[in-house]
Amino acid sequence: MRNDAGPREPADELNRLLPAGRVLTDPQVTGSYAHDEAEWAPHGLPAAVVRPRTAEEVRTVVRVCLDHGVPLVTRGAGTGLSGGANAVDGCVVLSTEAMTAITEINPLERLAVVEPGVVNEDLRTACAEHGLWYPPDPASARWSTIGGNVATNAGGLCCVKYGVTRDYVLGLQFVTGTGELVRVGRRTAKGVAGYDLTSLLVGSEGTLGVITEVTVRLRPRREPEHTVAGHFASVVDAGRAVAAVAEAGVTPSALELIDRHCLAAVDAWKHMGLSTEAEVVLLGRSDAPGPAGELEADTMLACFEGAGATYAVRSTDQHEAEALFEARRLAYPALERLGPVLTEDICVPKAAVPEMLGRVDAIAARHDTLIANIAHAGDGNLHPLLITPPGDERARDRAQAAFVEIIAEALALGGTVTGEHGVGLLKRDGLRDELGPAVLALNRTVKDALDPMHILNPGKVVSSSRKDS
Amino acid sequence: MRNDAGPREPADELNRLLPAGRVLTDPQVTGSYAHDEAEWAPHGLPAAVVRPRTAEEVRTVVRVCLDHGVPLVTRGAGTGLSGGANAVDGCVVLSTEAMTAITEINPLERLAVVEPGVVNEDLRTACAEHGLWYPPDPASARWSTIGGNVATNAGGLCCVKYGVTRDYVLGLQFVTGTGELVRVGRRTAKGVAGYDLTSLLVGSEGTLGVITEVTVRLRPRREPEHTVAGHFASVVDAGRAVAAVAEAGVTPSALELIDRHCLAAVDAWKHMGLSTEAEVVLLGRSDAPGPAGELEADTMLACFEGAGATYAVRSTDQHEAEALFEARRLAYPALERLGPVLTEDICVPKAAVPEMLGRVDAIAARHDTLIANIAHAGDGNLHPLLITPPGDERARDRAQAAFVEIIAEALALGGTVTGEHGVGLLKRDGLRDELGPAVLALNRTVKDALDPMHILNPGKVVSSSRKDS
Repeated sequence: MRNDAGPREPADELNRLLPAGRVLTDPQVTGSYAHDEAEWAPHGLPAAVVRPRTAEEVRTVVRVCLDHGVPLVTRGAGTGLSGGANAVDGCVVLSTEAMTAITEINPLERLAVVEPGVVNEDLRTACAEHGLWYPPDPASARWSTIGGNVATNAGGLCCVKYGVTRDYVLGLQFVTGTGELVRVGRRTAKGVAGYDLTSLLVGSEGTLGVITEVTVRLRPRREPEHTVAGHFASVVDAGRAVAAVAEAGVTPSALELIDRHCLAAVDAWKHMGLSTEAEVVLLGRSDAPGPAGELEADTMLACFEGAGATYAVRSTDQHEAEALFEARRLAYPALERLGPVLTEDICVPKAAVPEMLGRVDAIAARHDTLIANIAHAGDGNLHPLLITPPGDERARDRAQAAFVEIIAEALALGGTVTGEHGVGLLKRDGLRDELGPAVLALNRTVKDALDPMHILNPGKVVSSSRKDS
Repeated sequence: MRNDAGPREPADELNRLLPAGRVLTDPQVTGSYAHDEAEWAPHGLPAAVVRPRTAEEVRTVVRVCLDHGVPLVTRGAGTGLSGGANAVDGCVVLSTEAMTAITEINPLERLAVVEPGVVNEDLRTACAEHGLWYPPDPASARWSTIGGNVATNAGGLCCVKYGVTRDYVLGLQFVTGTGELVRVGRRTAKGVAGYDLTSLLVGSEGTLGVITEVTVRLRPRREPEHTVAGHFASVVDAGRAVAAVAEAGVTPSALELIDRHCLAAVDAWKHMGLSTEAEVVLLGRSDAPGPAGELEADTMLACFEGAGATYAVRSTDQHEAEALFEARRLAYPALERLGPVLTEDICVPKAAVPEMLGRVDAIAARHDTLIANIAHAGDGNLHPLLITPPGDERARDRAQAAFVEIIAEALALGGTVTGEHGVGLLKRDGLRDELGPAVLALNRTVKDALDPMHILNPGKVVSSSRKDS
């Protein structure tokens, strides 16, 4: 309900209701909050950016948006790759950047309570001081926030053994689409009191609520890892090695694929002395304790060799092993230096990894597009990276066509259109194809139920049932 | 919409639409489908019991119920302990007992696809033949079904290390409250395409949909376990040992508490030669591979001794260790031989376990009620078992009062009213107290969205927003 006696502009009302300095309206500044890192995803310009410091302030923001019928787009660090945090024209962008408190780290209960703006790496560092470990480790961990990780159900390198963000979220405090501040979930190890609204919020990309606090499960610090590296003549050979590791019954703590394009781009940027002789490098790790870890590493080595590795070795040098994983994490920003990078995020059954990588190669050739590959290969979660020369519109059109084809091939192989980056804007068509009309309608029903006024990140993931999407 | 041209009775219409033998209406027979194992939970009598064999037949049942406005109560083996499967008068009970196919066990993708009526133990046995392991292991594993386990998000003994049913459900096929047959979730290791309707259905106790197929994640077969047993003079001492294990950074593969009452009841029934000298027995296990497992077992032993165990030992006899865990699993049916048993299912923070066990003792004394204790102690998931002499109404009233007080104390200690048995009927008041009005309203909003005609297991968990609950 619009308050006709009050100020008409949401920014004015936010300024009136919140402490000084919370609201930004200078277009030079607000423009930098207008989009995430998804290449080519459309975005509008926010009417205001607000940086609340407390849950109550977040509630005020939601209520002002409700009052004015203005869309609210929540963002963390803006490292998303699907456009999920992109502004729509005239919206309020809520940035969680000022909510950075680590409220509790509890070694006995093995949990932490944090505000949404806490950077992933900062939480991991703080946990380590207590002998604890927060596993989810997206490659963006140095910049991305726990709130953003929860909103997208972020994955990472260790997911192949330890699962994704949702597996670590015990409870949430959030503001609903009707402006209520609520707590869901728990602090106990188990609990089945009511529907699992916690899991429902995780991965909902700001469309069902605005997260103000996260309670995460922690693990004890783990053993140092053993690293195995293998060079392969083709992505398909590397894919066969991945399938062999799964068949051997090993659960590696990481199993990452990086191709020559990525290694070359990282080396050109960071001068790490990386070998670019191999077409593809596979990096396997085991953190099983004691002799079990040795055995797993040896088994992976044998799998790499059996799949035709041109070179394979157990790394004895911890520094060298770290450099290889650092190269993996830097692959995306390194490639971005060459031109716009459109990031794919498909996930296919493990058995389909070689076939899918082969199809990506074929698509690259067919559309004359440079496609580099990084992959959480052990999960079947592939990130083909489509690189175009800056300013080349025709190359962009070709890459766009390749992007669509990769999604279709992933679905044809029984995969999903997004393994960990989220639907955002870039995967909305893919989502429709994947879910089909009945499940899409169920998703919309849930959206309508939790955000009845349709102010929370409209147009992302699914639209309301009232709108065409 | 009622089909005025057709038969007026749902049983007649079900008989007309389904193959012969699917529908039971003999009250002698249908009465045995009227309730689960929750003592004192109210139940009505079904108008018909139907045992469909396919997902399409399930859809037919849902559509007939929609057409006639008749409530539909789904049940697996009926081993539930909260009344979640209890019939309401005139309802249709859908039993999944005839849907017992294990459709797929896939070692490479580490998943299985099963019909809902598959018994937990049967799935575990089938997986073991492929070197695989389905972890969730409720004490009812020999009887309870995967469908029921999913509907209640069942826990079990190994949850302390391996998580609960929800952690293993990758995807579901189910019939919605509007009679659509849909698939949610995936077969891939990761995926964030749309809201997590899979987790929403898990633990929803048949109130949001009727599950027709479950895709579960599997693990590789694990190492043989090391077992540590400790005798304690009080539940509080045992509780301190549990806290010490958590503080020592050990993640046991089981950490179970059984008191003297349970051991005596099992021994009187099964003549297993169990010692009943100890007031309380703690059973710890480690399945960490190789020397790590030895170290964990030794650490647990030291924790037991440090907390004042009167006797503690690492079991070297696998048969003896199995007998102790068998006694744990048989505790509930053994006590039932003595009289009606009202089963609690609270879960408290680990640090609160000694305090909570002490309060249970005090409540037992205050209400002159025999309360035996079994507990997934490492999770803080306690099952006080309130035992009353058959036919003693006043004892029953005292036990009922104790039951309510235990729930209140669990909430006061930051716990939950149900760790793994579900809300059903017995925990509806507790649920209200735990969630509070705003979150309860959110739960109802979700219920209304997915079951708009309010035919799915009405009165369980939360009522629709249209009804008082």
